[in-house]
Amino acid sequence: MEINTKKEDLLYGVQMVQKAVIAKNTLPILAGVLFQTKNNVLKIMATDLEIGIKCTIPVTTVKEGSAVIPAKYLIDIIRKLPNVPINIKLDEENNIITIKYNSSEEYSVKEFKLHGFKKEEFPSFPTIEDETEIDFNIPVLVLKELLREILFATGLDENKPVFTGVLFKIEEKNNLALVATDTHRLALRKTSLAECQLQNLTSVIIPGRTLKELARIISNIHSFQSTEDLDQQNELVKIIISNNQALFILKNTILISRLIEGNFPVYDQVIPKGYQSRLKFKTKELLASIERAALLTKTNNQIIKLNTKLLESPNHKQDLLLVTANTEIGAIYEEINIHLEGEPVQIAFNAGYLTDILRTISAEKIYFELSGPLNPGVIKPVTITDGEEYLVLILPVRTA
Amino acid sequence: MEINTKKEDLLYGVQMVQKAVIAKNTLPILAGVLFQTKNNVLKIMATDLEIGIKCTIPVTTVKEGSAVIPAKYLIDIIRKLPNVPINIKLDEENNIITIKYNSSEEYSVKEFKLHGFKKEEFPSFPTIEDETEIDFNIPVLVLKELLREILFATGLDENKPVFTGVLFKIEEKNNLALVATDTHRLALRKTSLAECQLQNLTSVIIPGRTLKELARIISNIHSFQSTEDLDQQNELVKIIISNNQALFILKNTILISRLIEGNFPVYDQVIPKGYQSRLKFKTKELLASIERAALLTKTNNQIIKLNTKLLESPNHKQDLLLVTANTEIGAIYEEINIHLEGEPVQIAFNAGYLTDILRTISAEKIYFELSGPLNPGVIKPVTITDGEEYLVLILPVRTA
Repeated sequence: MEINTKKEDLLYGVQMVQKAVIAKNTLPILAGVLFQTKNNVLKIMATDLEIGIKCTIPVTTVKEGSAVIPAKYLIDIIRKLPNVPINIKLDEENNIITIKYNSSEEYSVKEFKLHGFKKEEFPSFPTIEDETEIDFNIPVLVLKELLREILFATGLDENKPVFTGVLFKIEEKNNLALVATDTHRLALRKTSLAECQLQNLTSVIIPGRTLKELARIISNIHSFQSTEDLDQQNELVKIIISNNQALFILKNTILISRLIEGNFPVYDQVIPKGYQSRLKFKTKELLASIERAALLTKTNNQIIKLNTKLLESPNHKQDLLLVTANTEIGAIYEEINIHLEGEPVQIAFNAGYLTDILRTISAEKIYFELSGPLNPGVIKPVTITDGEEYLVLILPVRTA
Repeated sequence: MEINTKKEDLLYGVQMVQKAVIAKNTLPILAGVLFQTKNNVLKIMATDLEIGIKCTIPVTTVKEGSAVIPAKYLIDIIRKLPNVPINIKLDEENNIITIKYNSSEEYSVKEFKLHGFKKEEFPSFPTIEDETEIDFNIPVLVLKELLREILFATGLDENKPVFTGVLFKIEEKNNLALVATDTHRLALRKTSLAECQLQNLTSVIIPGRTLKELARIISNIHSFQSTEDLDQQNELVKIIISNNQALFILKNTILISRLIEGNFPVYDQVIPKGYQSRLKFKTKELLASIERAALLTKTNNQIIKLNTKLLESPNHKQDLLLVTANTEIGAIYEEINIHLEGEPVQIAFNAGYLTDILRTISAEKIYFELSGPLNPGVIKPVTITDGEEYLVLILPVRTA
């Protein structure tokens, strides 16, 4: 294997796949990335057997072939390379990869050698099986926003795998619903897949980690032709879902992941159908208050209290929400102007969970729908595009 | 105590002093900052008994007095405050500090309360004693550069206190010499104090930590009148040195520190008077090579080898330096064009130490003076202003 390339492209490709590399593993080979070159294209691949990422970059193929290179050292050295033409060559006999970065203007030789892994040991890159259940396209920017709105609610406890994933559910009328919950809060997002005809309805659980990687890939992806970069508006991600795998195909990068087995919790009946009280807020104003309150509540299980109050003066009436917390460190008392429908509110929440939600919602104004101090609250944007739906449910905290 | 102030000024003042606060201490009071207000000025002070920092900011003094406030929570809440007028008031009876940040446009009340510390327990801010040995002024930008050039060479081992400090030595002809060494390398910087008449020659050891704080203060300091900010060129730091303390007086911030007792190692005789070989480099080119080599040497005590070589072709002669390292991970071989005077070189160094030095030197070109593989090397800028001196000495590594 031998290629000529440039630093920028090489770094892009290796960084794209690096999150699928695991340094500490019982299988040392998984600390490597696979280079495969043919027809002036370099495929760079990494997998931890749960997810796999493949990125394709343009190179000059001097000699076709492949090599498995230790990822960590490869990235470190690429970052430190000067901006000169780079040659990478595998000495097949000794399995040594030589990276040459000589400047043509100088007499000097500069090269860096790394011991390769045995390429026979590299696992075959996962491919999607024949029984493709479904495939559809979604605009990359739409997907990015959906992921942002949902991923914060996934759980981290690997002993409860379904809670670490996101439910992808294709509903009738080509609607896609995403749901995530860690049992303390639940995020639900529906969007319509305008331009595709889905044959099968399906629902799968995709690991939260996969989708976080997907979000990272979307944020970092770029074209090798700079003019295309202007066109991310119209760019699509193709999603293919099979029995046990999901595949995300982007411009020059492919992400493949196993699915999570198991039954996603029944969420429909958890979501309240109505409310006793509905509060209307400026999102950022409530967030700022909760963030300040959270400073005090580290010694207090993060409990903050929300109470409504009517401010009456001869010529003015104003509903207020009182955000309060009281701990051994100090106390906070904030009044926020709100619009209240229904009954007065007296409820407590975990400040951290509430902060996560409010940071995620990009809408300027939100509704907070409540049904007494023991029932879940529902937060949703005041305005949302027709056919779309977004809500976050949060459990209150019982206080003595 | 009661003041009116604004977020920006308050944050500036508290951040300036915060590095003198220690959260974990046998004396809980040292986790606090002292506020003292009088005549529309707020003095903010913190000390860990080793160093003390005082910053003065403009406020409206509503009621003279003082309070000691937990630093961590104070900084956290100030960062999160909106940009509205801020009122801070001490309830003397309960020792509770109330921070009010109501927006005048709204009906709402917003306040944050913190339990104060007992102000009687706050140590008196260290003052310089009468027996001032010496005081002089130095331009703030000159001092900043001197510190940068010297501080990397201080040691971190608290069991060898003199090595954690920097020798400040006032030499004849109003020369100031700074010296630091951790026994592996030594940095020496001399500068002339053009505009001051020193009565006494003296030499003291100032803690490296103090000087790192001083460098941070210099980087962050600003005026409350924005026009003055343009004038940092001409700004001076006044340095007062007594028997056992050093005081640094800046625009609105004062840093005071104990000195380190003990004898600084005799360094004059360590610095080689001549050399067998002198190499001339581009600083950044050598640095880039060493940084790349360092990637490989983590498993190898960071040893890199430097050898000279003469490249001869019929119409060209060029001295080269070969930078090489060879470890179980891989190998590096780089040739750098140099100018060599004297004998060929074959020597080994610690890549980390060499990197530290080369990152510090701002000169475009440097000399590396060597006297065989067992004697210290000396690195110095090729050009330096008259009357100034800067050199860094580094011990080689013995290789088998």
